[in-house]
Amino acid sequence: MSKYDSTLDLCFSALGDPTRREILQRLARGEASVSELAAPHDMALPSFMSHLKKLEAANLITSKKHGRTRVCELSPGAFTPAKDWLSEQSAIWEGRLDRFDDYIGNLTQERNK
Amino acid sequence: MSKYDSTLDLCFSALGDPTRREILQRLARGEASVSELAAPHDMALPSFMSHLKKLEAANLITSKKHGRTRVCELSPGAFTPAKDWLSEQSAIWEGRLDRFDDYIGNLTQERNK
Repeated sequence: MSKYDSTLDLCFSALGDPTRREILQRLARGEASVSELAAPHDMALPSFMSHLKKLEAANLITSKKHGRTRVCELSPGAFTPAKDWLSEQSAIWEGRLDRFDDYIGNLTQERNK
Repeated sequence: MSKYDSTLDLCFSALGDPTRREILQRLARGEASVSELAAPHDMALPSFMSHLKKLEAANLITSKKHGRTRVCELSPGAFTPAKDWLSEQSAIWEGRLDRFDDYIGNLTQERNK
């Protein structure tokens, strides 16, 4: 399995959970401390921290200690590998449909000659 | 949890596995039978079928019986919910960075007056 593959595994798996997506949605609006991020979630802190760890492991967020507070932010280009993979597959799929349309178009023209 | 949320849960979780992404990459090039799809994977058929079931549950693929053969294809707009979510978060994040750039630009102009 290539490095790119394992990046996508971690990234897509991390995105497959509503709590983790909500954390990312909050961080897209700007950095936040762990306690700010945890506040809207009815969850024990260790469970919440395990969500943050999965997001860090997937390179979706980074965190830094500021004194006694840990502050999280979205990684630059966090969503790029996932977006690129999805766009590539969509382009291949749409290219195939375009070629099919051309084929049908040509067939119709031939018949109408 | 909204319907949209559970669609994204299933979709992103399904994408978080290299075998399932390879199946989707193959199907982006056109429909294929289960045996064609399974051939490149060194895996027992029941395990392979469970990957196909996860992709179907996530609305990423559909399958139909043609006689004794089951043929799979990519669902139309399969990747749209995932792409839309990622694009939305990227746009919010980039908008925030643009506003920060503007703020720094204005601050520099004020200082140089």
